[in-house]
Amino acid sequence: MSLNLLISQGETPIKERHELDEIFNPRSIAVVGASSDPNKAGYHFFKGLVDLKFDGAIYPINLDGSDVLGFKGYRNLRNVPGPIDYVIIAIPAHEVPKIIEDCASKGVKVVHIFTSGFSETGRANRTKLEAQIAEIARKGNVRIIGPNCMGIYHPKIGLSNFGVFPTKESGPVGFISQSGGNTGDFARLGLVRGLRFSKLVSYGNASDLDSTDFMEYFAWDSETKIICAYIEGVKDGRRFVNVLKEVARLKPVIILKGGLTEAGTRAVSSHTGVLAGSDAIWKALFHQTGTIQVESLREMTDLALAFSHMSCPKGRRAGIVGIGGGASVAAADFCEKAGLMVSRFMEGTIAGLEKITPVAGTSVKNPVDSPVGRRVAVPEYEETLRLVASDPQIDFLIVHLTIDWRIRTSEDRKNLQDLTEVLTRIKKSLGKPVVAVLRSSQSFQSWQVFLEEQNRYLEGGIPVYLTLEDAANAVSKLIQYYEFREKVT
Amino acid sequence: MSLNLLISQGETPIKERHELDEIFNPRSIAVVGASSDPNKAGYHFFKGLVDLKFDGAIYPINLDGSDVLGFKGYRNLRNVPGPIDYVIIAIPAHEVPKIIEDCASKGVKVVHIFTSGFSETGRANRTKLEAQIAEIARKGNVRIIGPNCMGIYHPKIGLSNFGVFPTKESGPVGFISQSGGNTGDFARLGLVRGLRFSKLVSYGNASDLDSTDFMEYFAWDSETKIICAYIEGVKDGRRFVNVLKEVARLKPVIILKGGLTEAGTRAVSSHTGVLAGSDAIWKALFHQTGTIQVESLREMTDLALAFSHMSCPKGRRAGIVGIGGGASVAAADFCEKAGLMVSRFMEGTIAGLEKITPVAGTSVKNPVDSPVGRRVAVPEYEETLRLVASDPQIDFLIVHLTIDWRIRTSEDRKNLQDLTEVLTRIKKSLGKPVVAVLRSSQSFQSWQVFLEEQNRYLEGGIPVYLTLEDAANAVSKLIQYYEFREKVT
Repeated sequence: MSLNLLISQGETPIKERHELDEIFNPRSIAVVGASSDPNKAGYHFFKGLVDLKFDGAIYPINLDGSDVLGFKGYRNLRNVPGPIDYVIIAIPAHEVPKIIEDCASKGVKVVHIFTSGFSETGRANRTKLEAQIAEIARKGNVRIIGPNCMGIYHPKIGLSNFGVFPTKESGPVGFISQSGGNTGDFARLGLVRGLRFSKLVSYGNASDLDSTDFMEYFAWDSETKIICAYIEGVKDGRRFVNVLKEVARLKPVIILKGGLTEAGTRAVSSHTGVLAGSDAIWKALFHQTGTIQVESLREMTDLALAFSHMSCPKGRRAGIVGIGGGASVAAADFCEKAGLMVSRFMEGTIAGLEKITPVAGTSVKNPVDSPVGRRVAVPEYEETLRLVASDPQIDFLIVHLTIDWRIRTSEDRKNLQDLTEVLTRIKKSLGKPVVAVLRSSQSFQSWQVFLEEQNRYLEGGIPVYLTLEDAANAVSKLIQYYEFREKVT
Repeated sequence: MSLNLLISQGETPIKERHELDEIFNPRSIAVVGASSDPNKAGYHFFKGLVDLKFDGAIYPINLDGSDVLGFKGYRNLRNVPGPIDYVIIAIPAHEVPKIIEDCASKGVKVVHIFTSGFSETGRANRTKLEAQIAEIARKGNVRIIGPNCMGIYHPKIGLSNFGVFPTKESGPVGFISQSGGNTGDFARLGLVRGLRFSKLVSYGNASDLDSTDFMEYFAWDSETKIICAYIEGVKDGRRFVNVLKEVARLKPVIILKGGLTEAGTRAVSSHTGVLAGSDAIWKALFHQTGTIQVESLREMTDLALAFSHMSCPKGRRAGIVGIGGGASVAAADFCEKAGLMVSRFMEGTIAGLEKITPVAGTSVKNPVDSPVGRRVAVPEYEETLRLVASDPQIDFLIVHLTIDWRIRTSEDRKNLQDLTEVLTRIKKSLGKPVVAVLRSSQSFQSWQVFLEEQNRYLEGGIPVYLTLEDAANAVSKLIQYYEFREKVT
């Protein structure tokens, strides 16, 4: 059943258009503080829009009204001839209130305040300044993202976030983040590993729009199929809980909670000025709502990859095929630790494997230690995969090998590509989900081959992991989410 | 106190020369099965010795006595004019017994049997063949490494292991591994991340020499300061326990135990044919002996890096300096979860930091969120580090930043290098241990810069980690080991 269908059948009636949708889809943007000086943030926000060819009008606003990157500049928002939907503010904190007033008179729908130096400093006068800005905006019907944040990245329309993400290519992953740095780290890491994003939003101090608002919007947004979030704390706990409960039933929600320890909580209060709440409360909330909790951005990437690129296996029984005995042992250990099952093959599978497997140095049990050597015999590899994937005791495949063995000569390299091709073919014909683990030393050459090969796996609908533990963990949590959803719907 | 001194003061009297030392230091090597055909294992073993310029005589042995890579070939070991210390066997299993007989008549000290297809197959006739070989060797005074393994890599003398490790550069890390694949994976990963090895040994089925023998030898070997091991099971449990108890008091011992789950145990029996033992027993043993247990080769690399490149902090109090608020929260969380302390700074430190820190978007508490922006102001960064490192409440520093922000222009790149230089200077002048975390998206460009920059940190005595959790875990386990050793000695 598709997510959209689920949404329309859910208890929350589907809205014609979500009120935040126009905020994520502006037709015109002004950058206040836009500059030709690459040492200024305003330069990068403006350049990001230019580079990504934003699908609408863009206006640089600065003190002397000078042009930026060939675009006509203005001294003031009110001087801009056309309407402005979206304003990015990158000027000192004390000048922000005046700009918000201008935004209100101009009929701007949303401001993204990049500027920091507000409530997160812990100083009374700065907290007051933030409240004052929020009040001006509320009265003027202007919504706020921030302050102290990186704003929105909406690749499809070329709405760039500080110009750090180079692509308009979009995909199923939405990301909501209190931290701008984490937005950058996660998005860059994700793009390299094969994630594509619907929308990202870094919202900082959340003086107006909070994680809960974005969570609701992403639940509604048909472009977003998987919701990831980095959260340090929320302002309205009860509303957050209610929304999370609804949203996690419709789409997978993957959350990294910052500030779960005493030291982390203190760091949160210096960072975005919110109350972090106790570890136990958050854990209980995540458990109860079917939210997937992760410990790091690396784990979040792994999980989002699984949800982006594979369907849910029918059960927890892994068929493991790989090259290397030690790695096979590790595969079995990690699967069982992660709550997956390394079940025994049917007699017929073993008999079939015995026919094609040399006696020396290989195993025909699960995990299968595939024919050894630098160059793998392709027909035997294909038959091995076919036998294991056809076994009714097996719900999905974990396939692993070491890249470094297979990059010395062009024949090695060709062999590696053949293995990828065989696996994607088997997956297509037999229909069971597959995850791949490509071990790499991450030497320069090995990493280059990893990245190339990874993309060929992804095109075949196979997520790729760096280690067996990462793969086992991702698949297990994927299954756990769908088990939860089945129970509650 | 140096490790050598500790050894000589320990309860085990130091031996003049350990009996295995000549096995690790052969003066002449023959490769049985050496071939000019790159599809044969014998080619790679021989080529490895040639490429690494082995410091002694090397002889190819094959059926027709043909030369290999310009070296004179022989049909039989006995035809070789000079003495042979070390023989690598890469021919089918059933031909091995005859070769062992030849080794005995030739006075060979040790054979490394690469060939597999023995007890690990679980077949009675193959297990018998292995026992028969062991018996011939025992009677002929020949020691065996293997079968079913990759043998020894001793970089200093150019004793290569399958030609996969390209360097004669050596270092403090010894590695003992039942699995040949894990030897390759760990060594390659380690070399990329800055580990250097004294000796590696992959010993497979352990029909003669077992992990315990190598453990004892590495304890004695002054070239080896840190002992890493991948173990699936041991043959003489009592002896292993006694040796481990002694060795872990002298040098850090880091062990990855394969086969801790039911599925892993089954995989072990197909791999090297040993009994894996229960999880609880191994955990208790490691705890009791002060052995550092790791969950993966990645974690082993992280630990070996810490022991190779940093001294032990005086306590568990981390001073964290980094760029990015979300990352600072994560740093605090991960430190506390790992059992480190993120202590409060002295008043003077905070006052000093306040003088140089802009109000906006940074924190002067621990963790310090250092001046933001793409280009960091170097004098302020240096002063920040100096203040934190001088604080008597701080035992060591964790310093973190994101690579990707700093690679767009040559000025960014220069700024990154300046930050490295400042940190290594501070470390040198103030003497407290430092670890660095360089976050990277691992895009091609970002990873290249990571590798370059990593080496500059390592030269300054600062181990580099990919993530904050990896760094916190490594430092915590390093401290735990030294705490244990202080208690028992």
